[in-house]
Amino acid sequence: MNPPKTDARRRHDPQLRGFASDNYAGAHPEVLAALAVANGGHQVAYGEDDYTDNLQRIVRSHFGATAEAFPVFNGTGANVVALQAVTDRWGAVICAESAHIHVDECGAPERVGGLKLLTVPTPDGKLTPELIDRQAYGWEDEHRAMPQVVSITQSTELGTLYTPDEIRAICDHAHAHGMKVHLDGSRIANAAAALNVPMRAFTNAVGVDILSLGGTKNGALFGEAVVVIDQDAASHLKHLRKLSMQLASKMRFVSVQLEALLAKDLWLRNARHANEMAQRLAEGVRAVHGVEILHPVQSNAVFARLPHDVSERLQQRFRFYFWDESAGVVRWMCAFDTTEDDVDAFVGALKEEMAR
Amino acid sequence: MNPPKTDARRRHDPQLRGFASDNYAGAHPEVLAALAVANGGHQVAYGEDDYTDNLQRIVRSHFGATAEAFPVFNGTGANVVALQAVTDRWGAVICAESAHIHVDECGAPERVGGLKLLTVPTPDGKLTPELIDRQAYGWEDEHRAMPQVVSITQSTELGTLYTPDEIRAICDHAHAHGMKVHLDGSRIANAAAALNVPMRAFTNAVGVDILSLGGTKNGALFGEAVVVIDQDAASHLKHLRKLSMQLASKMRFVSVQLEALLAKDLWLRNARHANEMAQRLAEGVRAVHGVEILHPVQSNAVFARLPHDVSERLQQRFRFYFWDESAGVVRWMCAFDTTEDDVDAFVGALKEEMAR
Amino acid sequence: MNPPKTDARRRHDPQLRGFASDNYAGAHPEVLAALAVANGGHQVAYGEDDYTDNLQRIVRSHFGATAEAFPVFNGTGANVVALQAVTDRWGAVICAESAHIHVDECGAPERVGGLKLLTVPTPDGKLTPELIDRQAYGWEDEHRAMPQVVSITQSTELGTLYTPDEIRAICDHAHAHGMKVHLDGSRIANAAAALNVPMRAFTNAVGVDILSLGGTKNGALFGEAVVVIDQDAASHLKHLRKLSMQLASKMRFVSVQLEALLAKDLWLRNARHANEMAQRLAEGVRAVHGVEILHPVQSNAVFARLPHDVSERLQQRFRFYFWDESAGVVRWMCAFDTTEDDVDAFVGALKEEMAR
Amino acid sequence: MNPPKTDARRRHDPQLRGFASDNYAGAHPEVLAALAVANGGHQVAYGEDDYTDNLQRIVRSHFGATAEAFPVFNGTGANVVALQAVTDRWGAVICAESAHIHVDECGAPERVGGLKLLTVPTPDGKLTPELIDRQAYGWEDEHRAMPQVVSITQSTELGTLYTPDEIRAICDHAHAHGMKVHLDGSRIANAAAALNVPMRAFTNAVGVDILSLGGTKNGALFGEAVVVIDQDAASHLKHLRKLSMQLASKMRFVSVQLEALLAKDLWLRNARHANEMAQRLAEGVRAVHGVEILHPVQSNAVFARLPHDVSERLQQRFRFYFWDESAGVVRWMCAFDTTEDDVDAFVGALKEEMAR
Repeated sequence: MNPPKTDARRRHDPQLRGFASDNYAGAHPEVLAALAVANGGHQVAYGEDDYTDNLQRIVRSHFGATAEAFPVFNGTGANVVALQAVTDRWGAVICAESAHIHVDECGAPERVGGLKLLTVPTPDGKLTPELIDRQAYGWEDEHRAMPQVVSITQSTELGTLYTPDEIRAICDHAHAHGMKVHLDGSRIANAAAALNVPMRAFTNAVGVDILSLGGTKNGALFGEAVVVIDQDAASHLKHLRKLSMQLASKMRFVSVQLEALLAKDLWLRNARHANEMAQRLAEGVRAVHGVEILHPVQSNAVFARLPHDVSERLQQRFRFYFWDESAGVVRWMCAFDTTEDDVDAFVGALKEEMAR
Repeated sequence: MNPPKTDARRRHDPQLRGFASDNYAGAHPEVLAALAVANGGHQVAYGEDDYTDNLQRIVRSHFGATAEAFPVFNGTGANVVALQAVTDRWGAVICAESAHIHVDECGAPERVGGLKLLTVPTPDGKLTPELIDRQAYGWEDEHRAMPQVVSITQSTELGTLYTPDEIRAICDHAHAHGMKVHLDGSRIANAAAALNVPMRAFTNAVGVDILSLGGTKNGALFGEAVVVIDQDAASHLKHLRKLSMQLASKMRFVSVQLEALLAKDLWLRNARHANEMAQRLAEGVRAVHGVEILHPVQSNAVFARLPHDVSERLQQRFRFYFWDESAGVVRWMCAFDTTEDDVDAFVGALKEEMAR
Repeated sequence: MNPPKTDARRRHDPQLRGFASDNYAGAHPEVLAALAVANGGHQVAYGEDDYTDNLQRIVRSHFGATAEAFPVFNGTGANVVALQAVTDRWGAVICAESAHIHVDECGAPERVGGLKLLTVPTPDGKLTPELIDRQAYGWEDEHRAMPQVVSITQSTELGTLYTPDEIRAICDHAHAHGMKVHLDGSRIANAAAALNVPMRAFTNAVGVDILSLGGTKNGALFGEAVVVIDQDAASHLKHLRKLSMQLASKMRFVSVQLEALLAKDLWLRNARHANEMAQRLAEGVRAVHGVEILHPVQSNAVFARLPHDVSERLQQRFRFYFWDESAGVVRWMCAFDTTEDDVDAFVGALKEEMAR
Repeated sequence: MNPPKTDARRRHDPQLRGFASDNYAGAHPEVLAALAVANGGHQVAYGEDDYTDNLQRIVRSHFGATAEAFPVFNGTGANVVALQAVTDRWGAVICAESAHIHVDECGAPERVGGLKLLTVPTPDGKLTPELIDRQAYGWEDEHRAMPQVVSITQSTELGTLYTPDEIRAICDHAHAHGMKVHLDGSRIANAAAALNVPMRAFTNAVGVDILSLGGTKNGALFGEAVVVIDQDAASHLKHLRKLSMQLASKMRFVSVQLEALLAKDLWLRNARHANEMAQRLAEGVRAVHGVEILHPVQSNAVFARLPHDVSERLQQRFRFYFWDESAGVVRWMCAFDTTEDDVDAFVGALKEEMAR
């Protein structure tokens, strides 16, 4: 069988990989193959198709009988739709100062959702009941945006993890104050793989009300889903998704990707592999004198501090980003397609550049 | 060669097609194949990839040397990003009362963009300088949202077409008043095919400043682009796209689809075919006594008035929507994958139901 | 007793009045005197003062035992706060095409409240159940902003009036569809005076859920109130007022003005007088050949069509506005301080200019 | 001469004053008297009146020949209108974590203006170039809201002051990065009085682009103004004011209050007196063992730490607020009408309660 013809031409080296972002990776071949499965014929647009319907079954198998998935395009969209669904116009979101919603979304939560973010500095990207309390007050005070939801990220933007018990404590605390809990699960698969528990163990089982379920970084071309766990906590997701411009017309192509990932264990294989590569990378780096690893390496991210000139030379050979350039901190991400050779070559290059 | 394995399972009949929407169709196989071309290896995320770079070349070949494309997820996103790029916080958009931005986007222009829409009733979905003048006033009046852009749809939501001269007249008129012109080109390919002119003939050649370039209805899985023609007219598209939550991380997969469509003539073949099927459908319907075709059938849409019970029985056999149920008006859309047999079977069914 | 000293100097002719707007008038002396009553000493800011507390008693006497007033600064503020209080983020407002919220608020409902306005053309500024039905549909359709409230203006922007029964029919119709009813009562006093009924007769008695209670045009320096009638229909007015920037710190000075108007009959005296002046004006104008009065003159506005050059010459002598300049339509407003002499002089001038 | 009659009735003790807020005070009698000056006759609404016109002259005398004032209703309104005028849709505001716009406006900057606030913790409520640099980066990064303006408060929310040189350094630094500087001058008069310089010395003379000029806390009933100093820095203030619902119809009554304050020296007398009372208060408190004064007492605020039970008992006798209840910190504000006896009585009460 010949591959289908297309006028599109390959313009990149499919063997070249770096450590800049799990978003730099392409799609897992099984996900790509799933698109062909869903193609052909007509399916009702905007989510009334058979693939989105089936996705509900899959999502319930992961997140419990009350769960409902609302596929969206990207992570910012998932977060802003989810947060709007659990807040009123006067609501505020308590989150870590390092949260993606605060630092990487160009103000979309504020501009699209009208959401006030109440941030808390954290040592490791993780909130605690005590840290939450620094912003959890003033519900009756009209001068203050009302804290209505706590948003946590799992795994965090710093590559760290909450244990299920830590999330349970946050949920209990938030609920005791009448607040909901949102989990930004852009890398939820990495967290489950690292904790070696099902995703439910730190979401519905411990009280999370709504989550952003990541697909893109886990191996999809694009596509995430808002997953409502507590149906009483959130409402009118469909309208919010549409008015937030996150409603895909040919939604079957989002849903079937999530199916390919979540129906069996592709999500887990991909995440586990990325985590293992991060461990291999951390191990290799630890052996390099003069490079300090920051934060526990618990998922697929490695943060390190090294001399600025070394970073710059290394960036000539592998793509990666400064996290805090003035502090000499860099971030190295592993993806589902990172290979052992990639890691070893990178560590080798790091050694060379440190030795110059 | 075996097809790649996936856990996703086919859940629909790939031979079943209806006349509900060009969004009900899947993706053209050549577009699907293009995804594999772009897959593999790492590419810079968020638009700095080689496919998005190449897309600029393609888009310039269609829309002129100053054109720049900003791929986005969907049509609402394209429209709202584009309109924000040519308005200030106090700006308003003059559009037809039937415009998609007014009736089908759940208020996204207002809510996300803070845009006031100044609408004008039209007989056929088309604005004219005279119709525009019904809203084009009061630029100095702070009590009135300032008309800063005219938005037209080509082909229109009613399946009608503007001639290049008609759009030129609108652009001249708008520019004379200091307003920009946005073209919602969700079905721009169908318009070019029907007019038998290049897309530039009714966009950059006649003064359009910015447009929403449709991919989804033309055969993509998803994906559109804001195309800026006049670089002085619009600014900070990248920030606006991000804050409007329309920035794809793995953008290569949007861009390569648009490349598959636009690099050679797939866009045109798809659109031409859909238009031809609509002509065939209209011809067939005209022969059915008691069914009235509304609006000139100029692109891939057929609007008709028929007895309500006939519509309902026919809907049991083929998917389509009422356009104005109380008036007995329905809309039938043809897609790139509509076949002659589909059309003939549909006309046959219509005859049968009319005869009952 | 000497008047208190001030460095402010009189810069205008306090005897000069025109017919441009009831907003051109100053404050009624009894309102001004009320400010001195509330002055002195300290009162809790932001509405916990004794005057705002007492205002609740007064408002309940007008609008029933469940009514609650939330003083705000201006009419746009009252409208946008009130409409937000009865809609969700995905909500829409059905209103007349001539509604102030649509044509005179620079998009504030859309921009501040994220509200979609679904407008209906009317012959006389008045909605009816039938006219409402042109927009009252699609509650389940996520592509459409959800109609959640009907907003009517009493007296209307065209100087016409709803009877209590007409409003009751609108309320019954709206409620049957699960929609609330908002009344823009910027000139509610003029309506009550003209109908010769208490304000309650066409608000709480017939089903209105929330209203904007006008003070400014009735003789205040500034100041309106959102009045919630159905406490279940609206929520968190205090937060909405604050985030909409309509919370006065020294609120006693808003509330005491409303007290001065509403405690006894100043509101009614002022409105009745303005209405009578409009009747006198209409009567005078009707005697002038060549000037056509448009719309029934039911409150304090007179709309007329007359030769354009006459209007322009007349505007040299008295301030007033064109309503629709291309159609030769002008608007003449009477205020609480319009005198019989003002009216007679104006009619005389009109006669003279028509005779030239 | 008899005072004008009114139906409003005195409901409070005009001799009772506390230390809760300068917003608890009423209006200065000279301001109240000014309202009568501007009353009577008709004046063009919405700012085309003679008082607003004259206000421009006065404001230019304070803030330089290019200054232009846009009267608004309240401080939140002034801030949000001003900040919108110097930012784009993608803009962000750098401010102190303690800034009023961040902690006391219920998210109005975010919700009404779509503004992202980038906050910096400060020891004393004051930004510095170094502190600004913690947020001043990423102008080209579409993932980050673009820092376009630095907002400082003078005198600060903690009662501290910037010297003119400190503000000049901030302006130079901001301008060097292409950012504007906004000064929240809710208590600008107190700052000028304390520094013993004209207001211009720390605004236009040192590079401030736009400011919120406070009237309410200085002795007005209500009323502030956005003052644009650099006409190139800001645009379309009139539209922004209107769409932000801050446009007063009978604007003469805002403008004449500002005239009463600013035409001669009432603004200064009021501010100086309030500051002196704060000094007297601080002096008295310093003599009380066990009460710690926090922050330099530089304007009309005194912050102190004292035993919680003492605060609570003292609050039974005088109104004031906890600033940080868990830390035992309270805020005592002096106003233009605070008397020496008030202060002495308060200090006496404090001594008594500390001794119990």
